[in-house]
Amino acid sequence: MMTDKTNSKESQIWGGRFSQGPAAIMEEINASIDIDRRLWREDIAGSRAHSDMLSAAGIISSADNQAIQNGLDEIAGEIERDEFTFSKALEDIHMNIEARLKEIIGEPAGRLHTARSRNDQVATDFRIWVREACEQAEASLKLLMASLAKKARDNADAVMPGFTHLQTAQPVTFGHHLLAYVEMFSRDAARFSDARARMNECPLGAAALAGTSFPIDRDATAAALGFERPCANSLDAVSARDFALEALSAATIAATHLSRLAEEMVLWTSPHFDFVRLSDSFSTGSSIMPQKRNPDAAELVRAKAGRIIASLTNLAVVMKGLPLAYSKDMQEDKAATFEGFDALALALAAMAGMIGDLTPNRAAMKAAAGRSYATATDLADWLVRALNMPFREAHHVTGAVVAVAEKSGLDLEALDLKEMQKIEPRITDDVFSVLSVDASAASRTSYGGAAPANVKRQANRWIAALSKET
Amino acid sequence: MMTDKTNSKESQIWGGRFSQGPAAIMEEINASIDIDRRLWREDIAGSRAHSDMLSAAGIISSADNQAIQNGLDEIAGEIERDEFTFSKALEDIHMNIEARLKEIIGEPAGRLHTARSRNDQVATDFRIWVREACEQAEASLKLLMASLAKKARDNADAVMPGFTHLQTAQPVTFGHHLLAYVEMFSRDAARFSDARARMNECPLGAAALAGTSFPIDRDATAAALGFERPCANSLDAVSARDFALEALSAATIAATHLSRLAEEMVLWTSPHFDFVRLSDSFSTGSSIMPQKRNPDAAELVRAKAGRIIASLTNLAVVMKGLPLAYSKDMQEDKAATFEGFDALALALAAMAGMIGDLTPNRAAMKAAAGRSYATATDLADWLVRALNMPFREAHHVTGAVVAVAEKSGLDLEALDLKEMQKIEPRITDDVFSVLSVDASAASRTSYGGAAPANVKRQANRWIAALSKET
Amino acid sequence: MMTDKTNSKESQIWGGRFSQGPAAIMEEINASIDIDRRLWREDIAGSRAHSDMLSAAGIISSADNQAIQNGLDEIAGEIERDEFTFSKALEDIHMNIEARLKEIIGEPAGRLHTARSRNDQVATDFRIWVREACEQAEASLKLLMASLAKKARDNADAVMPGFTHLQTAQPVTFGHHLLAYVEMFSRDAARFSDARARMNECPLGAAALAGTSFPIDRDATAAALGFERPCANSLDAVSARDFALEALSAATIAATHLSRLAEEMVLWTSPHFDFVRLSDSFSTGSSIMPQKRNPDAAELVRAKAGRIIASLTNLAVVMKGLPLAYSKDMQEDKAATFEGFDALALALAAMAGMIGDLTPNRAAMKAAAGRSYATATDLADWLVRALNMPFREAHHVTGAVVAVAEKSGLDLEALDLKEMQKIEPRITDDVFSVLSVDASAASRTSYGGAAPANVKRQANRWIAALSKET
Amino acid sequence: MMTDKTNSKESQIWGGRFSQGPAAIMEEINASIDIDRRLWREDIAGSRAHSDMLSAAGIISSADNQAIQNGLDEIAGEIERDEFTFSKALEDIHMNIEARLKEIIGEPAGRLHTARSRNDQVATDFRIWVREACEQAEASLKLLMASLAKKARDNADAVMPGFTHLQTAQPVTFGHHLLAYVEMFSRDAARFSDARARMNECPLGAAALAGTSFPIDRDATAAALGFERPCANSLDAVSARDFALEALSAATIAATHLSRLAEEMVLWTSPHFDFVRLSDSFSTGSSIMPQKRNPDAAELVRAKAGRIIASLTNLAVVMKGLPLAYSKDMQEDKAATFEGFDALALALAAMAGMIGDLTPNRAAMKAAAGRSYATATDLADWLVRALNMPFREAHHVTGAVVAVAEKSGLDLEALDLKEMQKIEPRITDDVFSVLSVDASAASRTSYGGAAPANVKRQANRWIAALSKET
Repeated sequence: MMTDKTNSKESQIWGGRFSQGPAAIMEEINASIDIDRRLWREDIAGSRAHSDMLSAAGIISSADNQAIQNGLDEIAGEIERDEFTFSKALEDIHMNIEARLKEIIGEPAGRLHTARSRNDQVATDFRIWVREACEQAEASLKLLMASLAKKARDNADAVMPGFTHLQTAQPVTFGHHLLAYVEMFSRDAARFSDARARMNECPLGAAALAGTSFPIDRDATAAALGFERPCANSLDAVSARDFALEALSAATIAATHLSRLAEEMVLWTSPHFDFVRLSDSFSTGSSIMPQKRNPDAAELVRAKAGRIIASLTNLAVVMKGLPLAYSKDMQEDKAATFEGFDALALALAAMAGMIGDLTPNRAAMKAAAGRSYATATDLADWLVRALNMPFREAHHVTGAVVAVAEKSGLDLEALDLKEMQKIEPRITDDVFSVLSVDASAASRTSYGGAAPANVKRQANRWIAALSKET
Repeated sequence: MMTDKTNSKESQIWGGRFSQGPAAIMEEINASIDIDRRLWREDIAGSRAHSDMLSAAGIISSADNQAIQNGLDEIAGEIERDEFTFSKALEDIHMNIEARLKEIIGEPAGRLHTARSRNDQVATDFRIWVREACEQAEASLKLLMASLAKKARDNADAVMPGFTHLQTAQPVTFGHHLLAYVEMFSRDAARFSDARARMNECPLGAAALAGTSFPIDRDATAAALGFERPCANSLDAVSARDFALEALSAATIAATHLSRLAEEMVLWTSPHFDFVRLSDSFSTGSSIMPQKRNPDAAELVRAKAGRIIASLTNLAVVMKGLPLAYSKDMQEDKAATFEGFDALALALAAMAGMIGDLTPNRAAMKAAAGRSYATATDLADWLVRALNMPFREAHHVTGAVVAVAEKSGLDLEALDLKEMQKIEPRITDDVFSVLSVDASAASRTSYGGAAPANVKRQANRWIAALSKET
Repeated sequence: MMTDKTNSKESQIWGGRFSQGPAAIMEEINASIDIDRRLWREDIAGSRAHSDMLSAAGIISSADNQAIQNGLDEIAGEIERDEFTFSKALEDIHMNIEARLKEIIGEPAGRLHTARSRNDQVATDFRIWVREACEQAEASLKLLMASLAKKARDNADAVMPGFTHLQTAQPVTFGHHLLAYVEMFSRDAARFSDARARMNECPLGAAALAGTSFPIDRDATAAALGFERPCANSLDAVSARDFALEALSAATIAATHLSRLAEEMVLWTSPHFDFVRLSDSFSTGSSIMPQKRNPDAAELVRAKAGRIIASLTNLAVVMKGLPLAYSKDMQEDKAATFEGFDALALALAAMAGMIGDLTPNRAAMKAAAGRSYATATDLADWLVRALNMPFREAHHVTGAVVAVAEKSGLDLEALDLKEMQKIEPRITDDVFSVLSVDASAASRTSYGGAAPANVKRQANRWIAALSKET
Repeated sequence: MMTDKTNSKESQIWGGRFSQGPAAIMEEINASIDIDRRLWREDIAGSRAHSDMLSAAGIISSADNQAIQNGLDEIAGEIERDEFTFSKALEDIHMNIEARLKEIIGEPAGRLHTARSRNDQVATDFRIWVREACEQAEASLKLLMASLAKKARDNADAVMPGFTHLQTAQPVTFGHHLLAYVEMFSRDAARFSDARARMNECPLGAAALAGTSFPIDRDATAAALGFERPCANSLDAVSARDFALEALSAATIAATHLSRLAEEMVLWTSPHFDFVRLSDSFSTGSSIMPQKRNPDAAELVRAKAGRIIASLTNLAVVMKGLPLAYSKDMQEDKAATFEGFDALALALAAMAGMIGDLTPNRAAMKAAAGRSYATATDLADWLVRALNMPFREAHHVTGAVVAVAEKSGLDLEALDLKEMQKIEPRITDDVFSVLSVDASAASRTSYGGAAPANVKRQANRWIAALSKET
């Protein structure tokens, strides 16, 4: 319920609490349990692996190990069942769990921390969390890609205007436009995959910073926790947070893509475009204007770029200029990273939902594609191809034709051949084969081009590839 | 307790919830009640003022107004007593309160929103919050300044090395060093004061975006809520968030100052400097190394710069490129601003606490000041003054003297006059009057200089000025 | 011509140069003359003031002072006439000028640096530069405001749709919309003014960091350089860069405003809105589509927000965690600040030009304002006012009326009274007085509202106020 | 010489030029030739490949192709020899080269742009540049790593204090510390390698945005330019800038690592640490204090983190919310990216130089390692190992021993066995085998630990691996 925190702003952020003196201030700034309790699963997993290894290496007895494992089981159950009392006085998730373990199993709890330190413990917990966040981000991106690819396949031939500078430039198709984002999100997914692979080294066993004189088996703990190998340098193991920076960088880049698509959703649902319609699930109405559909979800996805970029800035600033090894500054890594990934998760889910939900207005798109002489480049290309005109000259002729069409208030398609021939006598009837938006789109058959056949092929390729993976 | 949110990472950030479908996703991204419930006081104050004005202007009856005021009273009590049930389905603090008001007073609740919209309502609530945050930041800065000024007065003559490039440069005093921060924080305080004054215009009455045809009295609501005047343009009133950006800019600049002082605390408490000692209140120990005092609070203050800078980045990115008037993106303004100010409040309180708490090690400071030939510039200045040597030549001579001292392993003070005369025969015995660190510091009597007399005067001036204000 | 730098990427950024060894690397990273030569006027002004003061205080002879002043005159002339040879080996503008002074006047040049250091010298130069940049930014903002206010006056009654969520919400006028930006930019101007006032303290005389033992007159140099007073603490004087951070914060906030207006220019010039037309001066065409007008200038203004926000981030990151006093890191302050202000200057000039240049398409705006039942709130307000209906109930009735209109494909204005009365029998003929977009806009007469009379009054107020200042 | 730009600030950033009217403003904001001239090699390479392909595909004649190739040869020569006149009126590098080509070869120049657009042209040029920047960054990182690994090998047994919170924690070795950075920089290098691989798809042939109807061979141009394959979606090809964002993210993360090492260089060269000495090549002296060595290069490397982080922020903000396809905002991509990589290149070169240059002060390091009871954990571990004490209890006993040592003013090594036995009678003489800093460091034999044997092995592994690659 968060009530004691939020009921009164004053007591929370200023004065009140802090006037109680240093202890209150220090507890507030120092304790991280409100943030790092999210690491409880990772912390217990790390302790299990460490204890098993200590026992296998003969550093603790197997009876002690068994007691520890049982105690950790019990704690996991308590937390799952929401029966665990987190204490701010115990500062962080590690001490909360260790203290409870001591209550439950007594003396053997004191042996768990052999050849370990909070420094390598937190580095391990956090790395496991970020690793999973990367996996989940990749999976969510693929769901979004699948959503886009399906919508693209169904709209492979739905002609819409392609824009540059938000000016109508050339006809494309709605499917082609959506597939552009599939490409972007596929690179985003690959970035998370690369980040995950790179970070998959286990810090456990680095101890405080220098390694240990106990005969530990770091390969064993690394393997037990799903890591590829142990970190090769103990100072690096406890000091590095580049894994989180890389994950947040991937999130930042994905956020720029999401914000671009979100911006387009806002444009497309505006009455000035009217290209797509979102159902009530992803828009909010107005009691007074029932036809109004505010694309709230799209706007919020667009805004999340702010938070995600900021989470990267936050951690980069924290890490800037920190000497090795552990400094307390690094405790701020978790809030920044959690915030960035929470926002990303939400934005990806909302965007995938919106894409699945949207209904394109093909008629409006096609009508818009036909305005603004969007097939002028087709005319120019025809001049080059049919009359072997140099490209720059063809542009000049086309400009003159468009000017005539504009003066007459006609589309290029509707212009009389004779009018064109006044400008360039060699133009023939064949020119009309390229002047419609459908013909234009269909002609873009170069690899990667907007032709519906291309789009269908690419959409199906993606659908197949994505269904294989999931 | 936040338990359903934090117990399981997976269900929170990915998959789980969202697989329940669009409604769950949309509620999660759209509802802001977890964040904006902090605005309940401001929201109720705004509604009170609006209702009073509507009644005074004859737009609603005074009976309806009375019912509304009573209902709002009751709600305020419920929230204070933590008996209010906040509902995510009702999205935000405004709808939560309005819905409850309807439950309590029935039909008149439906009249409260006359000539008002959520757009001007939230702009007003948030502006009041930011205004108070600026006041509180200014007050906290002044407490910190007072803490620094007192410590400066008590250490006006405690000689310490002044650094450039973290190399010993010239002797200063600890008091002088602390007063440099008083200057910085005084400008920070002035920035919050300016920001507060500039933002103190009331958006209420802008309605959705265009103003209203009801004969409202915006001066009255502005005055009732402590604003200087109503905003002069309704579109600006609901669209602007520069007041929050300015407040976060002031916070960002203050954070750089705090991070600099925090860095110095980390250096000074390191055994390599040993200039100050923090009590247990602001450092954490080690069970194993009882003499070790980790300056955790200082490190965390330093790290908060990341969060505060990021909160500004966050909001600036959100606002970039948003067309007028209200866009849902702007809902993200509050989380960014709350986070920035929460971090600032904590950092200011912790720093004020540390400054009050610290004990300087005068002996260590003075010894350090005497190393590294820190009075070389005093020698050069003596050459200029006593022998009318051009400055650049005096530097050259001084360099030669220092080289001799270094070769002999002696301090400048300990060097034989004859050795100096070998380099520059006109040097006399009088030179020794400037070569001690005490003499050096005492000689910096130019306005703003490090001389203890200056420092004492400035410290007392600040103490007097600050005690007058508080 | 920059040729050796730009001809070959490889030699510039990698390998080539640096393979020449440490000296080349060190010169490249250490020398700042390519950046700080822009400070030559400020540097000479500072030296003049310092020399005059030294002479007046009897620290140097008046003959030496005269020689110095003459030499500085000559150098200024050389730089103005582009005859000065800047040398990278001399690192920075200060040493370039001092070395040349020595060439010209010999020995007295060596006395100029008495009681001064590069640390207070650069702090003074840079502060003067930033102070003037703030003045110029304020002046440019006022030119832009005047441009907007005039266009607003001329379009005080040009009805256009007011948007929320980029959905048509209520009619406003184009003049009202432009005046919203006048409000924003007026606050931006005030921020530059406040920043200028706050920074107007003179660092000169702080020397390296501790002040000096020479009997200097800091009030004299401060006054000669247009400062309000000398800085009160020598360490602060050489270490502080918050004045630049504050100036960049003001620039950042202004940049968000500029980006918002730029976004709207891009939307408005899109064929999907067609609200305004830019002449060739501020748009680029296409040889092939002569009717196409790409709003390049608007897009570039929007993009400049990136650079300006980044310049603030840059300097904040540089300053984070720097111990006092001068650290070489601070040399990076100038590039960041110059870049931010160059971008701002350009964006302000381009935006002022575009505003003056644009031609609104009143017919298109008005037609758009009439779509989407934008006067629905007027109907609701009429129900409240005329029938004393509670606001929330009026909303409900209005929703029903709009739904009927939508089903019939009619505007609200065109709906038959009887259709409305089926929903709410008390509706009378008078309702039509509020249903046109003109009537709606005209009715927003509350202070700050969109009514043309309001807009005209506010526009004229701004025009008068701005013409008085300039 | 840049003189007209830099001689006078006023004329550059404000007023002067712009008062000449719209044309001057528009040229200033629109032209990018000052920035993108760096792309001349890439632009010519792209045109060559395109022309060859057009000819091979029969779209232009081979005579035309030959003329184009010859013309481009000539232009390349002109630029190399610095004889090419860049024109701002021609806006960008593409038009500058095309216009010159027309001058040289006449009509065939007009055919080069067939089936191409500035949109895919600039995307290709820029991608080639970023690709090479990634390669160079990776190569520079490996040089730095080699420098570090060699220094590490030579100092594998040089004991130094390992720090947490800048407090002495446990003995490590200087070699171990340096190898931590080798690990970090190796991940940085891998990030550049991954980014390079991911971006290695060719945009050429996407034309304006939709592909083309000409029978182009995109595989051919992709192969000719060293790309793995053509981009699969034409809209994505011209709209995506995530390749630059990813490269800048890798730079940002590397910059945090560089700033950390730079911070340590500043600390280590401070007289308070005196751990390393930099030669004059990488430090600047003081004419007055010849022994002073300011670590300017290290400070500047630390500061470059600001610029590099900001370059990422810059581009991310620019891209946020941009609809597809090309918007002019994207022209800002190059300045941001060039700045980020220029700063990175310089920082890497300077850091590699400093590492090679530095001389460690082994005596000072070792002495520092021995202070502060840095072997307390060794004592605790001995208690666990030798006496089978639970870890937490061993900590308690150790704390008591340290307290006794501190009270007696003795190091742990120097403490009498009997004193220890008073606290824990089972302690034997064997304990002294772990209490020296050498013994402590030597005992950290766990994988990745600080033991000199480990360090030597890892250093040699890196040296071998790196020498193989280069």
